[in-house]
Order: sequence, then structure tokens, then C-alpha cells
Amino acid sequence: MAAATTFSIIPSPATSRLTLRRRSIRCLSSPAPTPPATVLSQDDLKKLSAVKAVEYVKSGMVLGLGTGSTAAFVVSEISDLLSSGKLSDVIGVPTSKRTFEQAKSLGIPLSTLDEHPRLDLAIDGADEVDPYLNLVKGRGGALLREKMVEAASDKFIVVVDETKLVTGLGGSGLAMPVEVVQFCWQYNLTRLQELFKEEGCEAKLRLDPDGKPYVTDNSNYIVDLYFKTPIVDANAAGKEISALEGVVEHGLFLDMAAAVIIAGKEGINIKTK
Amino acid sequence: MAAATTFSIIPSPATSRLTLRRRSIRCLSSPAPTPPATVLSQDDLKKLSAVKAVEYVKSGMVLGLGTGSTAAFVVSEISDLLSSGKLSDVIGVPTSKRTFEQAKSLGIPLSTLDEHPRLDLAIDGADEVDPYLNLVKGRGGALLREKMVEAASDKFIVVVDETKLVTGLGGSGLAMPVEVVQFCWQYNLTRLQELFKEEGCEAKLRLDPDGKPYVTDNSNYIVDLYFKTPIVDANAAGKEISALEGVVEHGLFLDMAAAVIIAGKEGINIKTK
Repeated sequence: MAAATTFSIIPSPATSRLTLRRRSIRCLSSPAPTPPATVLSQDDLKKLSAVKAVEYVKSGMVLGLGTGSTAAFVVSEISDLLSSGKLSDVIGVPTSKRTFEQAKSLGIPLSTLDEHPRLDLAIDGADEVDPYLNLVKGRGGALLREKMVEAASDKFIVVVDETKLVTGLGGSGLAMPVEVVQFCWQYNLTRLQELFKEEGCEAKLRLDPDGKPYVTDNSNYIVDLYFKTPIVDANAAGKEISALEGVVEHGLFLDMAAAVIIAGKEGINIKTK
Repeated sequence: MAAATTFSIIPSPATSRLTLRRRSIRCLSSPAPTPPATVLSQDDLKKLSAVKAVEYVKSGMVLGLGTGSTAAFVVSEISDLLSSGKLSDVIGVPTSKRTFEQAKSLGIPLSTLDEHPRLDLAIDGADEVDPYLNLVKGRGGALLREKMVEAASDKFIVVVDETKLVTGLGGSGLAMPVEVVQFCWQYNLTRLQELFKEEGCEAKLRLDPDGKPYVTDNSNYIVDLYFKTPIVDANAAGKEISALEGVVEHGLFLDMAAAVIIAGKEGINIKTK
């Protein structure tokens, strides 16, 4: 678990994204901190990968703070390291109101993209990870802010448990979210469903527990796309979705992750590009 | 001013947009209804072109209703023809809350894209028209809804006075609007300005008269771009703007207009593709 090993796996922040793209994807099992003696829960696995990810945080960094259950473990771990003095001068840029509240309550100094348009590192969870480290994100509803912050980061590290691995995006059968303006959302829902006829897509407006439409931090709605078979060409799909007027953002995060930390029952795997 | 002449200028709704694209741009002066005896004001010219545009409205059509001062004359003229019985069974799809209110107060039956996802015809004003019938729109703040409705129309007719003609988009020196989410608008303002360094772009957040940020019908902000020289490649510019996370829509309406009706001191000109 030495830092040297780590840095041989994940390139330093100075490495350009272009260089990262050219690298082949490697997968490496690093020894788990403690071999699990008992069966680990999904939360244990999430925490394990969060702790591993935070090893890449250095004092003085400006950090993108993700949203969701795994990202919440990351924020909590950063707070612990700041409290114990192992980290200092870290500034966080939250990707949602929820994360803002959590980080603020833990005393992490916070900023925004307006004040810090370039970030050193972003760490976030994902809903699906394909073999090329392309992602589905946004089931937590924060896809737009996550994409803005993570695209502005020199390096974006994803933390997941092994249940999130898919052979093709959309392959989990769970939601791939698209944020749309409220105006004529039904029109866009129909258009989105039509785009993915081939994948047997069913499009549904996301609802709150009380049955009212879920409203994002940006006052938009979310249309969730459910696929019977994985998306055939994710790059083409991303462009087609974005071209629809009234679509604000979609949950396909393509060619963005520099590394994915995967917690499984056998330990931690790190995949890099 | 015979309808036959008109239809020889503007292709019928059955003509596909693909066919329209292949046509060369023609410009034809049709005799003005009455030779102007006095100097016409800009409002007179707007009204003149609005009346001409409404000649293409037929009973039974589903119509996109634009936003802005010229579009308001169009809505008013349609209402007059409905009241006099010269038109019937027309349904309007407004592109803004303002137009909705105006059309409703005039008794025009209204609908939405949700109920009528395909429209026969849309008529709207524009802020700039280039020689290829590409447009800048949205100084009135309704660019997103306008683009949604007009892209859903079989034919889109633009009505302007001759002051709106430019040799290249952005060439008027007035605002080219971009609708952005409120979250980190300053970050996106800077990124937009950077995109158009070559054109000497100055980006400004649109403000209300009271100095607060102007909020669109979709709860977003507008960043207005002011260019010293026209945009070099409007197609490339449109794609680059759309690729910025947090941009909801931009005011470049490219390859959308089937015809532009231009009112000038010499009469009405109609340009078609």
C-alpha cells in the first residue's frame, strides 16, 4: 500500500489527459490494507475504496467533492485527515447542495468553480463503469454539477464497489439519467426514448417519494432511461442526446476518468487508462 | 401580392428541409401592398413583414408563435384573421410566457409541444440574419423555447426589418445570448469569452433593470456575447458553445430558417433557401 506503488499506477496531476488517453488500460490488484476476515457489506466496500482514493489527496490541493453514498465516505475521510493534521490547506469544490452541506458541517474549507476554475483532483462515485472506464453517473441527481466540476479537474478518480462494473453502459438495467428543462419535458422524454429504440429503451420522469417530479439543484427535471441491452455506441449516443434542445446534461461520462478504484471481496483493484 | 407568387417563393410544407437546403438562396422583391407615401417607422416595417408572413398560415395549422416585438405583430394579425373568420382551427404553440399571455388574451387556442410534437409552421423574429439565412436570436430572452418549437416545425419563417441583416453573425455588435445554468455562471462566462478571443468577444451577464441577474423562463441566466468582428465559423462556434457543461442553449439558429421576410423602405423582400 506504499505511495510509490500508487503513483506508478495513477499518473501524477502534471500528466496531461491526452497522455492518459494513449495509455492502455491496466488492472492491478494491490494488497488490501487488512485481509477481510468476515463478509464485507456494500457499505464496507464503498468505505474501503473511499479510503484508498483519499491517499491521492495532498496538502494544498483544490478538490472536487462528489455526490452520493461513496462520495460521502470520501468527504468524511478527508475531514478526518484534516482534523488529525495529516492534511492541510485543502479546499473543496462540492458538486451538489447535499455535499456542500456535509462538507461544511465537517469544517472543510469550500469554494466554487467561479473562484477556482481549475482543480487538482476530483473524487466521485459512479453508477456504472465499463471496461474503457466510461461511466454512467447521476442516479443521485447531481450529474450536471458533477460533470462541470470533474471536467475542470486535472485528474478525476472514480471510487466504486465491484457491483458497478458493466460490460457496456446501460447494461445494469438501472437508470441512465438525462437532465431536461421542465418546459415540455414529455416531448423530450418521447424523443429520448425514440433515440434508443434499438436498446429497448424505456424513459421515465424521475419522481420524488411523494409522486411529484424530482427537481434538480438547477430547477430541472430528470428523465431516467432504462435499457434492455447496453448502449451500442456511447459516444454517438452522448452527442445525439446533447443535440436535443431542452436537454441540459446527460449521465454518460465518457473519456473523463483517469482511474477507477474498485473495492471487491478480494481487495482493492485500481484500473487506469 | 398573389398567393401563387408567394408559393413559388416559399416551398410548401410538404417540401423536406433536405430539399430546401439544396436550393440556392434567392432574393425576390414582391410589389409592396401600397407604395409608402411617407417614411415608415421600424414598427411599421415590422408590422408589414408580420402581415406578409401570416399569409402563409392556413386554416387547420398547428403554429409556433415566436417572441419579441415583430412576433407580437404576427400573433395580433393571426388573432384578427381568426376573429374575422378568414382563418379557423388554428392552434398556437407559444415560445414564451409572454407570448402565451398575449395569445391567450386574444383568444387564440393554445397547446404545447407535449401535445403537438410536430408543428406545420413557426413564425418568429430574429436579431440578426446572415446571407445564408443563419440567425442570431434570443435577445428577448426566449431562445431555448424558441429553438425547441422552431426545430419541431416543418417550416420556419423569419420576419425582420432590414436593419437586422448582417454580413456575418455577431456583426451587429449587439448581444448574442447564451443561456447557462445559474450554478457557477461566472466560470462559464469566462469560458465563453475565451472561446471567442479571435473575435474580440466581451461576455456580460444579462441584468434586469433593477441590476439583478435576468432569469429566463427556465430559471437560468443569460450571458450576452458582444463581438468586435463577426464570428468566423458559426457552425464550429455553435458546437463549441454547446460542449461547455452548464450551457443550456445558445442564440445561433443555424440552418433552421426556410425563408426570411424582410421589410425595408423599398417594400418586402423574401429570401428562401
